[in-house]
Amino acid sequence: MDYFTGVRRNETLEIGELLKAAKPGQNVRVNGAVHTIRDMGNVAFVILRKREGLIQSVYEKGIADFDLKEIKEASVIEIEGRLEENGKAPGGIEIRMEKLKILSEPSDERLPLAISKWKLNTSLEAKLNYRAIALRNIRERAKFCIQEGLTRAFRDFLYGQGFTEIHTPKIGARGAEGGANIFRLDYFHRPAVLAQSPQFYKQMMVGVFDRVFETAPVFRAEKHNTKRHLNEYTSLDFEMGYIDGFEDIMAMETGYLQYAMELLERDYKKELKILDVALPDVTRIPAVKFSEIKELVSEKYGHQMRNPFDLEPEEELLIGRYAKEEWDSDFVFVTHYPSKKRPFYAMDDPEDRRYTLSFDLLFKGMEITTGGQRIHDYRRLAEKMEARGMSEEGMGDYLDTFRHGMPPHGGLGIGLERLTMKLIGEDNVRETTLFPRDLSRLEP
Amino acid sequence: MDYFTGVRRNETLEIGELLKAAKPGQNVRVNGAVHTIRDMGNVAFVILRKREGLIQSVYEKGIADFDLKEIKEASVIEIEGRLEENGKAPGGIEIRMEKLKILSEPSDERLPLAISKWKLNTSLEAKLNYRAIALRNIRERAKFCIQEGLTRAFRDFLYGQGFTEIHTPKIGARGAEGGANIFRLDYFHRPAVLAQSPQFYKQMMVGVFDRVFETAPVFRAEKHNTKRHLNEYTSLDFEMGYIDGFEDIMAMETGYLQYAMELLERDYKKELKILDVALPDVTRIPAVKFSEIKELVSEKYGHQMRNPFDLEPEEELLIGRYAKEEWDSDFVFVTHYPSKKRPFYAMDDPEDRRYTLSFDLLFKGMEITTGGQRIHDYRRLAEKMEARGMSEEGMGDYLDTFRHGMPPHGGLGIGLERLTMKLIGEDNVRETTLFPRDLSRLEP
Repeated sequence: MDYFTGVRRNETLEIGELLKAAKPGQNVRVNGAVHTIRDMGNVAFVILRKREGLIQSVYEKGIADFDLKEIKEASVIEIEGRLEENGKAPGGIEIRMEKLKILSEPSDERLPLAISKWKLNTSLEAKLNYRAIALRNIRERAKFCIQEGLTRAFRDFLYGQGFTEIHTPKIGARGAEGGANIFRLDYFHRPAVLAQSPQFYKQMMVGVFDRVFETAPVFRAEKHNTKRHLNEYTSLDFEMGYIDGFEDIMAMETGYLQYAMELLERDYKKELKILDVALPDVTRIPAVKFSEIKELVSEKYGHQMRNPFDLEPEEELLIGRYAKEEWDSDFVFVTHYPSKKRPFYAMDDPEDRRYTLSFDLLFKGMEITTGGQRIHDYRRLAEKMEARGMSEEGMGDYLDTFRHGMPPHGGLGIGLERLTMKLIGEDNVRETTLFPRDLSRLEP
Repeated sequence: MDYFTGVRRNETLEIGELLKAAKPGQNVRVNGAVHTIRDMGNVAFVILRKREGLIQSVYEKGIADFDLKEIKEASVIEIEGRLEENGKAPGGIEIRMEKLKILSEPSDERLPLAISKWKLNTSLEAKLNYRAIALRNIRERAKFCIQEGLTRAFRDFLYGQGFTEIHTPKIGARGAEGGANIFRLDYFHRPAVLAQSPQFYKQMMVGVFDRVFETAPVFRAEKHNTKRHLNEYTSLDFEMGYIDGFEDIMAMETGYLQYAMELLERDYKKELKILDVALPDVTRIPAVKFSEIKELVSEKYGHQMRNPFDLEPEEELLIGRYAKEEWDSDFVFVTHYPSKKRPFYAMDDPEDRRYTLSFDLLFKGMEITTGGQRIHDYRRLAEKMEARGMSEEGMGDYLDTFRHGMPPHGGLGIGLERLTMKLIGEDNVRETTLFPRDLSRLEP
């Protein structure tokens, strides 16, 4: 019998420790994956990939007690040697290798992609086919560190605002968003569906915790094969009670974006630099009515409106351009969407019932958030369902929550992959999805 | 056009603000759900439920400018009045109501459950049937605040240990854990499954980020109808590279538990008190071999071993009892599980290949974690698959990752609902699941 008393300290050093705690001239032990080897003849540079970045080690015959040939690209090794300063090496340091320990060897060192190049010069298709290898590229990997920062900021910010984190079921009896884009499965001989959103559950939980959030996968069986659609994505959802109006939700989202940009600036500086990302200014985000911006854009760019009830992707792009040109903002809230295009639970605008107290947030011309105030009064909810010819069947649990009292509330859902994509300047949402699921892609 | 510049300050106060920022005698505005009304004749107490707890408001004719009858249980209201000290009220304060604003009224104030009682004296079945109402009970709600703390601690601790958060797909072409307990669905006319675990993906990502974690739902089509099984649960998963042995994983989990207990003690004191939870001592956690503890328990309690390759629930209970009696610990790592009962990716013990370098963590006699070291060498992985008669078909992406070099690594998965359940002393995992999914329950 043994006892475990907590995290063990490693004898090998991470890059941050090498830079801070270790001193040039000191003997250090470091492990890592062999990212690339540059053999210059009398000396060779072995670049190791570690979680914090790359570190250069130098092989020189006579100093090292092993043969360079023992090191293969894609091997995982541990080295021991003297830490030295070198202004040309990553981080300004390098290790002059003395001893080598092979931790693991590839059975095939010919990688399908040249991951050690600064930019992976290959097709998106190839990157997705060899995903686990492609992501070993430093730039590819950095995208998902940024994504981590965005998720982390969402949670930390909302904890600070009195929100409670919830976990709602992804298998259910019916979808929350309606429409045909729903995955169906057999649940012990009963028909079931995958959640299109946590909408009903997060609303029900506002009656319990006042403010809730969830960061979890959602599933949409959309048959769109575009650069902006995924069939499974991570949704950053929140729902808040006791709002004075749907403006409170946009104000909260603005607060999140401000918090997120600060967190990225502070803790993800390295990755921002690797990807050459300039963070957007989120000091203030303009908000403009759906019908108003449609006209503004139509006037300014001579765009012909085809669909008066929705925004087409090209219109979103023009609105983004307008917001940048007129208000110097990468973000713009488009408010008061037509009731026709919003789900039954959206609260209609009492001043004009053709519109709703709802909004989308566009980032560089693409919708990354849908939100709004919800109906909290049972009678009004029932009326709206009836007017839409909807049945209450199967909605009992949801509706009962409102029968038994609910505060005025609203919320939103942010598509994490789209937010990441726009932030780092990618043009296909698959670039910022670890393992995308689309019409043709179920693997890896 | 308007601008949003960040979170808006509410004019109403939360409980924490009333206790800290406000002064007795001051006029305050507070909103909340009417939890219960106690009408004493000349005076009435209206208890409001807010996210931070309960607050007492006092109604007295002549002071209030409205009729008490205007307030219904389950209404959501905003009140204005004088803050006063009262040692008998929750938090030692109360509000003498002057003005009332009704934010929302229930259409049915007869709640199906008496949520304002301290303990909800009703069956688990009823609590689950009326979940959104049952959770309005202060004790029921507190369970999920504790659960939040456990998840939050997991992430915060691992961020601090250099882990990267990942989001892996829940729809895939095949399961990672094998066996029959897999949900199947149609994915655009292709057969697909729901992820039993993020196992393959998190391993693949060790080759990218060295250390990764995920907190996400997993799906198990188990036909067990027990107090400890769910068909969908939240798995706290991590996977770490560059380990010296599988002990590093247990050490990391011990570190997590220590961090979690500290976080709960610091930030969830109120909820621990509501539920009367005494946090377990996690200074040191004993670890004992599977075969050894089987014998120890058999000797001490005269238990007959039926299955030499696995632990039955009754055996887990006895091991928990043994650990408490002999080592004064609520937790115990059981190590070196038989190879037969572990998946193909588990690393066999080089000293005795009938066993694996794996472990379960038991908490008060129940398995809450399974973990271990994985095979990182492609050839050994292929050999083991062949020995088990497994085909490499459909496993190409997973296996290729190993072909191209992987560090020694291992990890674990913690069942969040079970961990919460054991921590707060519940005996059915549904008690600590927001909306459980089991053989018979697909709603709410």
